[in-house]
Amino acid sequence: MIKLKKLNSRKWLTLTTLILVFAGCGQIEEQNSTKESYDMEATRTAISEAMNAQEAAWNNGDIPGFMQFYKNDPGISFVSERGVDKGYETILKRYQKSYPDTATMGKLEFEILEFIPAGSMNAMVIGSWTLFRENDEPGGYFSLLWEKTPDGWKIINDHTS
Amino acid sequence: MIKLKKLNSRKWLTLTTLILVFAGCGQIEEQNSTKESYDMEATRTAISEAMNAQEAAWNNGDIPGFMQFYKNDPGISFVSERGVDKGYETILKRYQKSYPDTATMGKLEFEILEFIPAGSMNAMVIGSWTLFRENDEPGGYFSLLWEKTPDGWKIINDHTS
Repeated sequence: MIKLKKLNSRKWLTLTTLILVFAGCGQIEEQNSTKESYDMEATRTAISEAMNAQEAAWNNGDIPGFMQFYKNDPGISFVSERGVDKGYETILKRYQKSYPDTATMGKLEFEILEFIPAGSMNAMVIGSWTLFRENDEPGGYFSLLWEKTPDGWKIINDHTS
Repeated sequence: MIKLKKLNSRKWLTLTTLILVFAGCGQIEEQNSTKESYDMEATRTAISEAMNAQEAAWNNGDIPGFMQFYKNDPGISFVSERGVDKGYETILKRYQKSYPDTATMGKLEFEILEFIPAGSMNAMVIGSWTLFRENDEPGGYFSLLWEKTPDGWKIINDHTS
């Protein structure tokens, strides 16, 4: 306390300014790390909700609604044993061709098996899909790579077996 | 210039210290962003080299060598139409069971079709694989999710069709 009393007003200005600047730098760091750990849980919730909305759209016979959760971009991919379908429009057309009516679409059920964060802007979801139809129940497994876009979380790579 | 001349030595100290502190903050930012853009190209190279080494190990009949580029972790996954194989040991055993000798292993050829960065610590590679064997040429497509680990880039999710 004795030493502090000796500081004149100019030194106080220097000291307090420096403290404020360093505190400012520290706060930016802290906000970023808090934001990241928050995003992790928010991401899981946002992607689960997106997949529930996809199921609902599919079960309503609405393929464009289902496709809203793919990034509308010519760079996205759909990988299967047949190869790589490239781009939003190609993937949309493939779904529309493979599932021309609500009977072939059936009732879709996703089961999320795993969630793998990949940085703050991407995440992978592994899961299974089943179509409950009149005469059969096709299904399989998927790995979806999601990206955080200005329009929310969107699929940028779908590998389905 | 006239105004600057009026500053006394204490004010100069305040000013120069502040400038140095702000410059310091700025430099940390710049270093980070330079590091990230550098890592992008380094990542692509490192993963290509890892996949070349995987081919070489496979073609040498060395499944454990091939597996060195999977993360040695019980949390990694191998997804296919059969389901999800969980963990390094499970995946290693599955490879050893499916490919008991060099005749069944054949000669492996990867073709990288796409490289998708996902933050600075992950990247996805889409590609095709072919096994050139005496009597057949099985093949298909893969999506590999890589992670930057202290031991280099390793596969944490392999979806193969």
